[in-house]
Amino acid sequence: MAQKTTLKEFESVFPKLEEVLLEYAKSYNLPEKELEWYKASLQTNTLGGKCNRGMSVPDSVSLLLGKPLTEQQYFESATLGWMTELLQAFFLVSDDIMDSSITRRGKPCWYRQDGVGMIAINDAFLLEASIYVLLKKFFRQHPCYVDLLELFHETTYQTEIGQLCDLLTAPEDTVNLNNFSMSKYQFIVIYKTAYYSFYLPVALALYQLNIATPGNLKQAHDILIPLGEYFQVQDDYLDNFGLPEHIGKIGTDIMDNKCSWLVNQALAIVTPAQRRILEENYGRKDKTKEAVIKKLYDDLKLEQMYKDYEEKRVTEIRDMIAKVDESQGLKKEIFEAFLGKIYKRSK
Amino acid sequence: MAQKTTLKEFESVFPKLEEVLLEYAKSYNLPEKELEWYKASLQTNTLGGKCNRGMSVPDSVSLLLGKPLTEQQYFESATLGWMTELLQAFFLVSDDIMDSSITRRGKPCWYRQDGVGMIAINDAFLLEASIYVLLKKFFRQHPCYVDLLELFHETTYQTEIGQLCDLLTAPEDTVNLNNFSMSKYQFIVIYKTAYYSFYLPVALALYQLNIATPGNLKQAHDILIPLGEYFQVQDDYLDNFGLPEHIGKIGTDIMDNKCSWLVNQALAIVTPAQRRILEENYGRKDKTKEAVIKKLYDDLKLEQMYKDYEEKRVTEIRDMIAKVDESQGLKKEIFEAFLGKIYKRSK
Repeated sequence: MAQKTTLKEFESVFPKLEEVLLEYAKSYNLPEKELEWYKASLQTNTLGGKCNRGMSVPDSVSLLLGKPLTEQQYFESATLGWMTELLQAFFLVSDDIMDSSITRRGKPCWYRQDGVGMIAINDAFLLEASIYVLLKKFFRQHPCYVDLLELFHETTYQTEIGQLCDLLTAPEDTVNLNNFSMSKYQFIVIYKTAYYSFYLPVALALYQLNIATPGNLKQAHDILIPLGEYFQVQDDYLDNFGLPEHIGKIGTDIMDNKCSWLVNQALAIVTPAQRRILEENYGRKDKTKEAVIKKLYDDLKLEQMYKDYEEKRVTEIRDMIAKVDESQGLKKEIFEAFLGKIYKRSK
Repeated sequence: MAQKTTLKEFESVFPKLEEVLLEYAKSYNLPEKELEWYKASLQTNTLGGKCNRGMSVPDSVSLLLGKPLTEQQYFESATLGWMTELLQAFFLVSDDIMDSSITRRGKPCWYRQDGVGMIAINDAFLLEASIYVLLKKFFRQHPCYVDLLELFHETTYQTEIGQLCDLLTAPEDTVNLNNFSMSKYQFIVIYKTAYYSFYLPVALALYQLNIATPGNLKQAHDILIPLGEYFQVQDDYLDNFGLPEHIGKIGTDIMDNKCSWLVNQALAIVTPAQRRILEENYGRKDKTKEAVIKKLYDDLKLEQMYKDYEEKRVTEIRDMIAKVDESQGLKKEIFEAFLGKIYKRSK
């Protein structure tokens, strides 16, 4: 493979993993109809995304090695990458039910597809369980097998407590801005998103090469978590200020009562009168009320505040990257690659 | 402890495990409100059952050792027992949503409690994740740590494919008796119930004492899976023929379109006219139609068929127990204890 993997290359590994998972189910004599169902769930829920998380495993391994991967190395790293995609699929299928979402990746959410409904909960479980089937199949003999198992367990747990906090802070049906705060926001973003999206792929790469040490895992953590936080702040910014033709959707965070960076930023600086405007208009499924909030965001100059935040944060992250100790095998380029994909993105 | 644990003794271990789980969540700075929520979910969903599965771990360990357990041995085995109860809690919370159940252990199902709703899905995830938190905390140094992790993964997977088959075979809203068959029934029962309820506790006991071998695991499996199957057949029998004052509930399998042993037995022997009666009355929320099915079951002499099945099955299981090779540390008494609790039970 080239130094940087492509979606096509990464996706070409999936059929082999699917085959392994279906063979495993068959080894338990799962009847034909159920096998087809599992296959449909795997394909619908794991494929079709941008695979940024998954692809960052082979990309990181390649940067760590400083050279293109052999076929075997690529297969291993892409397999670990697909496990991050399976973990994400497990979360997305269930989050969509919990959030009453309508569409995902341009199609109806899995639980809204014909005849699925609440069976989707068990399908989500099987997506998660598939990670451990693949780990056992391909990494049973790896010196870091236990570390890999524990990393997936810990990341899963972290994401679940992030999701719990998100669900209790911003319930779909009750607007209570007193629940929101920048520290609550930070907790949700770090646990619900940053660990599995940013830290997990790099930790997997270090384990695959068996060069993980407490020191370089900590260094990776200390850069990737702020990077993940910045990524989510940017996502929240783009939801309101991004161009629909760039981000590929029309943002709905205001109407959905999301605990977004923008509303928390607003809450921190509003006058009492502006606070009332927020109270009366945020989180309502009403285009006019949404427009009132959008106007308030403009009055509060949130776009400029975001740009200032971004410059400050990126400078800090660049400083941290500059200080990375490469003596234990870590490479600054890994973090630069992540930052490069994020900085000033418009989609 | 005495040779046989009591519910009181077993439950006395739980507060320590709860404390460990809450401390773990606190170590990630989970906010107070979320911590209280997790605690409520743990208590509501893990406590309050009969704990037959959980208690069978210390009971099995004690029988394997042939003597009462030390305090440390009891704590370890009860901890493994509580992990089986956490696994069950994970399944029950989510099954109740998938089955639209109303009550569980005499109280509203968790998802139906005030303010819970679909958050219960994430709560179920956290119950599952708690198993691995406890395993890491208490068994990280155990020589069988990896075996324990893999055993929980495999058992979880088995139960999930059993649940998938159950959901696709007997959907709540569509009656199609062509979906049912004794072989489908057997698959569901073995995977959805027997592995986690019967095989798991004994395998855990063997691992705790580090005396598991492929040979004695297979012997345990080959007895406990048929035993679990017999247990579920009996459960289905009691749902219709048991006395409500004994079983503590009024059976609803007929109205709920359950893929029960009785309906499969009936389907195997009905005349075309009786088949039409089944088609027209099974799986309807209608007391009159239920009475028609109950009458048909009587006409078909299903009670006697069950009793014949029970005698035959119990004889076979007793024969298998008699042939158990105890030279690798396994004890016949373990299986006799399970069988003793089940045979001719009325509740």
